[in-house]
Amino acid sequence: MATRQAYLDYGAATPLAPEVVQAMLPYLTERFHNPSAPYALARSVRDDMEAARATLARLMGARPGQVTLTAGATEANNLAFAAVDGMIVTDAAEHESVRACAEARRHVLVAVGSDARVSARAVADAITPETELVSVELANGEVGTIQPVREVAAQVMAERARRLEARDPRPILLHTDASQASLTHAVNVSSLGADMVTLSAAKVYGPKQVGLLWSSDDVRLRPLVRGGGQEGGVRSGTENVAGVIGFACALELASERRRGEAIRLAGLRNRLQDRLRAAFPAMVITGPKKDKLRLPGLLHVSFPGLDATRLVIGLERRGVSVGTGSACAASRMRVSHVLRAMGVPDEVARGSLRMTLGRPTTSEEIDYATEQIADVVRIEAARMGVSL
Amino acid sequence: MATRQAYLDYGAATPLAPEVVQAMLPYLTERFHNPSAPYALARSVRDDMEAARATLARLMGARPGQVTLTAGATEANNLAFAAVDGMIVTDAAEHESVRACAEARRHVLVAVGSDARVSARAVADAITPETELVSVELANGEVGTIQPVREVAAQVMAERARRLEARDPRPILLHTDASQASLTHAVNVSSLGADMVTLSAAKVYGPKQVGLLWSSDDVRLRPLVRGGGQEGGVRSGTENVAGVIGFACALELASERRRGEAIRLAGLRNRLQDRLRAAFPAMVITGPKKDKLRLPGLLHVSFPGLDATRLVIGLERRGVSVGTGSACAASRMRVSHVLRAMGVPDEVARGSLRMTLGRPTTSEEIDYATEQIADVVRIEAARMGVSL
Repeated sequence: MATRQAYLDYGAATPLAPEVVQAMLPYLTERFHNPSAPYALARSVRDDMEAARATLARLMGARPGQVTLTAGATEANNLAFAAVDGMIVTDAAEHESVRACAEARRHVLVAVGSDARVSARAVADAITPETELVSVELANGEVGTIQPVREVAAQVMAERARRLEARDPRPILLHTDASQASLTHAVNVSSLGADMVTLSAAKVYGPKQVGLLWSSDDVRLRPLVRGGGQEGGVRSGTENVAGVIGFACALELASERRRGEAIRLAGLRNRLQDRLRAAFPAMVITGPKKDKLRLPGLLHVSFPGLDATRLVIGLERRGVSVGTGSACAASRMRVSHVLRAMGVPDEVARGSLRMTLGRPTTSEEIDYATEQIADVVRIEAARMGVSL
Repeated sequence: MATRQAYLDYGAATPLAPEVVQAMLPYLTERFHNPSAPYALARSVRDDMEAARATLARLMGARPGQVTLTAGATEANNLAFAAVDGMIVTDAAEHESVRACAEARRHVLVAVGSDARVSARAVADAITPETELVSVELANGEVGTIQPVREVAAQVMAERARRLEARDPRPILLHTDASQASLTHAVNVSSLGADMVTLSAAKVYGPKQVGLLWSSDDVRLRPLVRGGGQEGGVRSGTENVAGVIGFACALELASERRRGEAIRLAGLRNRLQDRLRAAFPAMVITGPKKDKLRLPGLLHVSFPGLDATRLVIGLERRGVSVGTGSACAASRMRVSHVLRAMGVPDEVARGSLRMTLGRPTTSEEIDYATEQIADVVRIEAARMGVSL
């Protein structure tokens, strides 16, 4: 029986920060009122919710009226796509929610490099006069690649300028899903240069099924869900007050700790990476080589010839929880579309583990996980007759 | 300053039952894992979530695979409408989410009576060969009218039989939003005879932004939100585990207490109604006269010539929280579409209060509220020179 534990899947789910739970509890108990109701108790709940929205906006360098609260990042991404009718340009390594939205429409998938990085040049080349939306995430949640969103934004702005010059009224917008990046990378909308930005509470130690779409004043969002007219008519339904309050608290904490946490997580990640690499010279480290081009708390590795599912099961017996890629895809045991887009051969992809470190991760936990991973990999390699 | 309180707007928002908060807390703290992740901790969370889904299904007399979890009743209603392409038949007193979905499509609004009740005959008359969806709520949340859903179901089944006979492959489905009814009325899907049923956690002392759409095996739902493929591909996004657990706990409690609570609430409501009527003979009681045709915990009254907004403000100073109609519409200070559909003159509608009683409501609270309402109405009537 495992007495020690190491949870290394913060990319799939973060626990709620204790501060977040405390912030939410009043709205799950005595402050339960419907924020649209007319009496003082309800108006006070509405004020708190709007204060939370203002906090979220401030942390993005935005205005509260530009923030649409949603039931998570997937819905926010869908809402962004619903804002346009024309052709979509996105890259082949996007999260499944963006990919699924693109596939439901006329779209171009821009190829990514072997590090999963898309080039702004390739995006620019894919833009045609019919393109109305470009969607490139800020960081890839599976292999950690930071995408050049600002450079992509410059290309989108150049195209917009060209259309203005040509008196072509067709809009072109840039959307970026910053969910996976927001713990360690700033999400200031001006710096990003995007027209729409998705964030998720569940990735920043906030509650699940709470997210937002920021959109600039030039964007006219169109509802996916109609009804009572909440969220400026764009997203009807009685608001998840506790969730929004928790989200604001979580993003505030994340913003305060962002810089220090990025450095600390990179240190722990590199410790894990260096020790595993020393033990298994044939292990493949996936994603960009340069630390500044990848998420600090993420390590994606492949053990060619091994089966990741067996590794996960071996590790869970030892109290070590790791992922096999994106949690969504993992449950269906498919080879990841991200790895495929990077050109990773299937036999390598099948032996892939994704380890994502988080706020509670300690160096002792990393050391314990390293030992256990090494042990399980050695056993599996021996069983399969593979030399790593 | 108000030292005593009476909250009488449970139709707009219910507090979470203490049992529900307790059930949710582990999933907001240590059991935070992503239910799609592959390791034991996550699979155990998935098991708990699926057990909650099974509970919800059982309480509806349904199977777990027929339950799609959503971010609230509004989304569930939108999902029901997205299942069909053809003409919609609904009634003029539906909740704004159903109404907005209908208005975005080709639709017929069936008139309701002065008690807001729709007749199954009128629905049958509105059905044409192009009709693919009929949507009639189980109970109206604003004036409390119980709709004849079973009778409507019989008409829909007759039309289905006719089409089968005529070898017409066009489907016709019945959807019912049972959100407002489920605390006091059974929501067994076979008894209702519907093909799709919406429920809301927020109306049964569960969390906000959690709901479900039950659909029969004959219905093929189509996603509003695409992505990782959760909820059988119909509703993507990492699941709101805590919310689903809370919903199941809340509906279980509601089911256990349903019969007794309906009797208790009707008693309290009638006490409130009778005393107000004795004080104000000109007060209009809106909705069906027969108790069995209206929600037991709801009283909708109008004071002709008075302004409900002023009454609400006067009452909140005395610690009494009441609504002016549906919370969604209330914030926009429109005359309710339900009252208009019932033929209530605008000057009567403007003086309308909705009082909804709930699990924590006591007879002392009702007595306090009665006194305060009477007092505030008298003051306003004197100010306006109105005789009530």
